[in-house]
Amino acid sequence: MAEAITSREQDYSQWYNDLILKGGLADYSAVRGCMVIKPYGFALWENMRDQLDRMFKETGHVNAYFPLFIPKSFLSREAAHVEGFAKECAVVTHYRLKNDPNGGGVVVDPEAKLEEELIVRPTSETIIWNTYKDWIQSYRDLPILVNQWANVVRWEMRTRLFLRTAEFLWQEGHTAHATADEAVIETRKMLDVYAQFAEEWMAVPVIKGVKTANERFAGAVDTYCIEALMQDGKALQAGTSHFLGQNFAKAFDVKFSDKENKLEYVWATSWGVSTRLIGGLVMAHSDDQGLILPPKIAPLQVVIVPIFKNDVEKGMIDNKVAEIIQNLKDLGIRVKYDDQDNVRPGWKFAEYELKGVPVRMAIGPRDLSNNVVEIARRDTKQKQSVTMDGIAFYVQALLDEIQLNIFEKARRYRDEHITRVNTWDEFVETLQNKGGFVSAHWDGTAETEEEIKTKTKATIRCIPLDNEPEEGTCILTGKPSTQRVLFALAY
Amino acid sequence: MAEAITSREQDYSQWYNDLILKGGLADYSAVRGCMVIKPYGFALWENMRDQLDRMFKETGHVNAYFPLFIPKSFLSREAAHVEGFAKECAVVTHYRLKNDPNGGGVVVDPEAKLEEELIVRPTSETIIWNTYKDWIQSYRDLPILVNQWANVVRWEMRTRLFLRTAEFLWQEGHTAHATADEAVIETRKMLDVYAQFAEEWMAVPVIKGVKTANERFAGAVDTYCIEALMQDGKALQAGTSHFLGQNFAKAFDVKFSDKENKLEYVWATSWGVSTRLIGGLVMAHSDDQGLILPPKIAPLQVVIVPIFKNDVEKGMIDNKVAEIIQNLKDLGIRVKYDDQDNVRPGWKFAEYELKGVPVRMAIGPRDLSNNVVEIARRDTKQKQSVTMDGIAFYVQALLDEIQLNIFEKARRYRDEHITRVNTWDEFVETLQNKGGFVSAHWDGTAETEEEIKTKTKATIRCIPLDNEPEEGTCILTGKPSTQRVLFALAY
Repeated sequence: MAEAITSREQDYSQWYNDLILKGGLADYSAVRGCMVIKPYGFALWENMRDQLDRMFKETGHVNAYFPLFIPKSFLSREAAHVEGFAKECAVVTHYRLKNDPNGGGVVVDPEAKLEEELIVRPTSETIIWNTYKDWIQSYRDLPILVNQWANVVRWEMRTRLFLRTAEFLWQEGHTAHATADEAVIETRKMLDVYAQFAEEWMAVPVIKGVKTANERFAGAVDTYCIEALMQDGKALQAGTSHFLGQNFAKAFDVKFSDKENKLEYVWATSWGVSTRLIGGLVMAHSDDQGLILPPKIAPLQVVIVPIFKNDVEKGMIDNKVAEIIQNLKDLGIRVKYDDQDNVRPGWKFAEYELKGVPVRMAIGPRDLSNNVVEIARRDTKQKQSVTMDGIAFYVQALLDEIQLNIFEKARRYRDEHITRVNTWDEFVETLQNKGGFVSAHWDGTAETEEEIKTKTKATIRCIPLDNEPEEGTCILTGKPSTQRVLFALAY
Repeated sequence: MAEAITSREQDYSQWYNDLILKGGLADYSAVRGCMVIKPYGFALWENMRDQLDRMFKETGHVNAYFPLFIPKSFLSREAAHVEGFAKECAVVTHYRLKNDPNGGGVVVDPEAKLEEELIVRPTSETIIWNTYKDWIQSYRDLPILVNQWANVVRWEMRTRLFLRTAEFLWQEGHTAHATADEAVIETRKMLDVYAQFAEEWMAVPVIKGVKTANERFAGAVDTYCIEALMQDGKALQAGTSHFLGQNFAKAFDVKFSDKENKLEYVWATSWGVSTRLIGGLVMAHSDDQGLILPPKIAPLQVVIVPIFKNDVEKGMIDNKVAEIIQNLKDLGIRVKYDDQDNVRPGWKFAEYELKGVPVRMAIGPRDLSNNVVEIARRDTKQKQSVTMDGIAFYVQALLDEIQLNIFEKARRYRDEHITRVNTWDEFVETLQNKGGFVSAHWDGTAETEEEIKTKTKATIRCIPLDNEPEEGTCILTGKPSTQRVLFALAY
């Protein structure tokens, strides 16, 4: 049998770690807070990254690469930004080691101290806007629609595999525009791209909204976000898109001459998603047997397991499987034939359930003579005997169905976990017993938001973009409110 | 006119910088020794990376990701490795900044000092082999065929855009094997992959060889390399593949139980190429008008420039061009229509020559009525009027021809610059006046190699894999030698 994993009921947090570690997605590393993304996890990330990259390019963006290091002084240029990012970061102070004169390996060479410390980028607005200063003179140089795939470091005190690690992989888009309108349109466009990716590819339903001032990105005028719901009723911020106004242009003195030859500061956006998405993906769909991965991004979509007693049977199965694999590959389906002979089929079944492979085929001698194969789908665990005629097309349609089913299941769960409450007691009771998003009136002040957080740990996840105006009274203060906002406990 | 670039004759080094900067490949950054890879340069890198990635996957490798940081003590575990890599590296000593009590922005918080310093990876053998220890127990866990695409940092004192930067992008393959034979075969296989990539995709002819002990990777038993020749007669190491023996397995105590249940140390290889390849590509092919990029990896393969006097003419050209572009795209050809109206066609011609776009099409009203287009190829600068019938297929064939021609030209130059010499005077004279590879006898000692380097700056680039044994005498010491080796001045 494959390794047993903790059930969600028993210990949700341990269940999550078991899936990541035993499912082969990632490992802890020797460096505090940093993880190793294992080949299976990285293949998943590649599929996500490649699709996002296609969507960025289809919307007119190009990739570039900016330095890993940011001069310390850059962080201080934008007042809010430094408050948000300067605190927990990796600081490079020296550029050389030397042999320990006492023979204890190598030590930092005190003579190789940098004049100005370098920060390992926690995000790249500052170094990029310092560069854009050289790239932008006239309105003809705008817009700049650049994205970067990179590693970033934030020295988090409490880390969780994928969800919160000191180093993580992400993309960060940084665009420059001639007008505020154009920048806001870009901010919203990329939010739509993220939402479309989350729903159509990750099968994770999301709510698009805008953050309150408290929860805004450090240096942004407005932060838009997509919020997803995990199976334990906690929300997860899955992506953000920021309208930065002229804050960074002013901090780095980036102006352009407009059509009337007048000098204006440039308008900016930035937007990003990270390997954190993998954590959200795992928690949104998986069950007590292991990962459930949406077919569109699953590293493996189909695994074929032969059932045989001897070499003759194995040979016959091999022949048939070769044909099936070719047909599947012709349709662009990612398939593996697992014919290793040192573990039993039952072990393999459990292993591929753990790894979340959407479709499993088993073929034995009797199947061969009946011209059928046994097909098991990971999401519902249903098994079915299916004729081999046109099996590849059957599997193709099944993968689409699984993709949709995973999404619909997550959407039903999410929809059932948006609760409208009108009183403080209902609010607390819902957070404690039901979880999920709580739609409630709030008086619009940062103080009330903070007090609610202190009392319940719940934060305002977002003000949904499709909010209807509605008169009401704040659940905490009873002051008047014009719309509901979504609260939740969150990762 | 596009910006003028320095000629090779006038100042080769400035010519190179002009191409990189004005050709839009990269920029200097605010961080010493680090560069910004601009969108055009990054698109070139993406094409190279994607093809290499396909070749790695076709040879059975998978990608993974390991931490950016390496605990300082890890570097000391392998004796030769620490000598090679511990010296010039970025050292993270603190994990927090705080507001300067004197009001001068932010300062390093002295209370946030790391117990053990972290090194920004200069290469990842140590952190990876520390991880492999957990992944490998039995021969069934082998081979591990993992590659990583990553950024690395080496604190170089003298930096050159792409050729030698403090931070650079690369891939590093790290494989683990049950036997020395298998590891050596892997080392050689990846060298072949690199050579094939360099020749077929970058159109850069390379010599495959093995390094002398002096030039070996720090920690390797054998370092294989591909060596290319630049137009100034200097060699450039374009990729290396290392047989690491059991050095890292011993340093990190990585053993496996073989089929007889005996514990053995694991055998290792590592291999890498980097953004340095772009520097080599530029210097191998380009001319005084700008970049010459091989079609297979050029970000843009075809640019179309309309020649018109008024909107009516422009409209007619637009219609025809839309059709041509569709036909080109159907063949997978990367094409751009540059119809901006604020610069003249001559300016555009110069600009795309500078950027090395392989094929330029110009279409004016007279071309339209004659059903032809003017085609200019970047490599030979030949212009030709070509019928529009089946123009996409014509262009497709032309791109292949250009790819081949660029390679053949570079190969002729390289072959003409391999000079066999038998005396010290010939050796020095060839290095000084002709450049290129100098094939000469050497007595096989590190001392002689060092002395030749001190006297002439020439290093042994490699001992070619296809070397014929030949009796001779060392050009410096006159001692007996059994084979020639290739010397050159090098980047």
